[in-house]
Amino acid sequence: MDQTPFHRAAILGVGLIGGSLGLAMRRIGFPGEIVGISRQSTIERAVELGAIDAGFGYDQLPQALDGVDLVFVCSPIQHIIDTLPSVIAEAGPGTLVTDSGSTKRQIVAAAAAADRKDVHFLGGHPMAGSEKSGVTAADPFLFQNAIYVLVPDASVPEPLHLGLRGLVRGMGARVLELSAQSHDTVVAAISHLPQLLATSLVEMVGQLDEGDDAHGAFLMLAAGGFRDLTRIASSPFAPVWKDICATNGDRITDMISQFRQHLAQVTERVGDDALAQNFDYANRVRDTI
Amino acid sequence: MDQTPFHRAAILGVGLIGGSLGLAMRRIGFPGEIVGISRQSTIERAVELGAIDAGFGYDQLPQALDGVDLVFVCSPIQHIIDTLPSVIAEAGPGTLVTDSGSTKRQIVAAAAAADRKDVHFLGGHPMAGSEKSGVTAADPFLFQNAIYVLVPDASVPEPLHLGLRGLVRGMGARVLELSAQSHDTVVAAISHLPQLLATSLVEMVGQLDEGDDAHGAFLMLAAGGFRDLTRIASSPFAPVWKDICATNGDRITDMISQFRQHLAQVTERVGDDALAQNFDYANRVRDTI
Repeated sequence: MDQTPFHRAAILGVGLIGGSLGLAMRRIGFPGEIVGISRQSTIERAVELGAIDAGFGYDQLPQALDGVDLVFVCSPIQHIIDTLPSVIAEAGPGTLVTDSGSTKRQIVAAAAAADRKDVHFLGGHPMAGSEKSGVTAADPFLFQNAIYVLVPDASVPEPLHLGLRGLVRGMGARVLELSAQSHDTVVAAISHLPQLLATSLVEMVGQLDEGDDAHGAFLMLAAGGFRDLTRIASSPFAPVWKDICATNGDRITDMISQFRQHLAQVTERVGDDALAQNFDYANRVRDTI
Repeated sequence: MDQTPFHRAAILGVGLIGGSLGLAMRRIGFPGEIVGISRQSTIERAVELGAIDAGFGYDQLPQALDGVDLVFVCSPIQHIIDTLPSVIAEAGPGTLVTDSGSTKRQIVAAAAAADRKDVHFLGGHPMAGSEKSGVTAADPFLFQNAIYVLVPDASVPEPLHLGLRGLVRGMGARVLELSAQSHDTVVAAISHLPQLLATSLVEMVGQLDEGDDAHGAFLMLAAGGFRDLTRIASSPFAPVWKDICATNGDRITDMISQFRQHLAQVTERVGDDALAQNFDYANRVRDTI
């Protein structure tokens, strides 16, 4: 890897994302030690897998962060918000703290509230995942070709900003830099709204199947494309979607509202050849992604 | 195959579905000749592929249907509606006519309007397809494990009804018998609504991407799950969706209206743990399909 300004990294929350960060950093030759902060059972497994060199419990933050100059906080969003104040308080001067939360405004605000001038926070959101979770599913190539959003802040010294960006690019990710506001708007549209559409669609079809004359036929016929389309409706609520809705609710309700307007137009156009325009536009857009 | 009451079959519209019906019937040992009615270039290709034994143009219906006692009409919905009167008029006494259209009420009504007591119509909808189209994509196993909806009518003699059901089951399909009304309601919920949701979602995100401060970020981040979820937004409008919307518009707008109510409830619950109930219910339903 290119030269990095970091000498010792800590990963708080060594699950799928945290574990994959550790494995990816090892893969590309991160020169320093990588320590983990997680539950004891996770630590043991993560050390076995080579994702971290050593580990600490959540109650051992001061020891864990000793000598560390780069911290990845990779727990669920609400836990990141709750934990950031202690991490920033315990970090040594000059440390860069980043995270992997999938909403950004409240996390950035929690870091800013910690109000420590000599510890720097630069939010991140690796747009990578898997059906699986936990460190046993960690993958050194998880970020290869994935988008990795960074939320730069003018207060972060340039070498640290460039250092994190270089590290993430070194793992094979494509970096996109956005404000926390823009990030939360974009993910509300392309991730949170689709999740709620899929959930609502499956819920509605399930209720129709229970109630309609054609009892059972809805779910029987749902075996085809519907099944692929609604795969994400199997995502459990807590902690991921609970935290996302709690921290990005305003943007999500705004997107649902906009979406309802689009549906209203489509409703007017069903049975009208003007609907061809909606299809043609969607065809063109879809072909670019 | 089990004994069949049919001696000679015709397939009108030898595309993906019609061609696959021919190949599947050959595969399972349909004993009689299978003729196709299509454009000349399609006929030549279909004979080469073994989907039909011989073919006729659309202007040769009387010759094509000579001696035929089973007709599959497999063209786009509007074409089926327009063609059924001539097919029923030209068919010999005792012929069973069926179709593959993906909406059923208007097709069944068109057949009923032909008002011939000695030619019988029993609507069908094989829930099978492919990204590809045309006879070159035809597949003798297309209906294996697929749902094949039949729309029985009390006027169809029992041996013909059982004969068609046996033939379709012989091709490996799972038969579901529904009224035309129930069929159109069910497909509005599990196929037509999802298509319009995907189209509207891609349209909305495309417009946001053009207009927002975060120009380009929407479509760049859309590379992940959004891409899989909106695959069907690449479906062209004509002829399939144009015909579906023209012939099932009332059920589709009803489903959109019901869906908007579900979205309204979700909007109220974003940021509220009651949303867990919607997720839990959707998780359970999704796991059954």
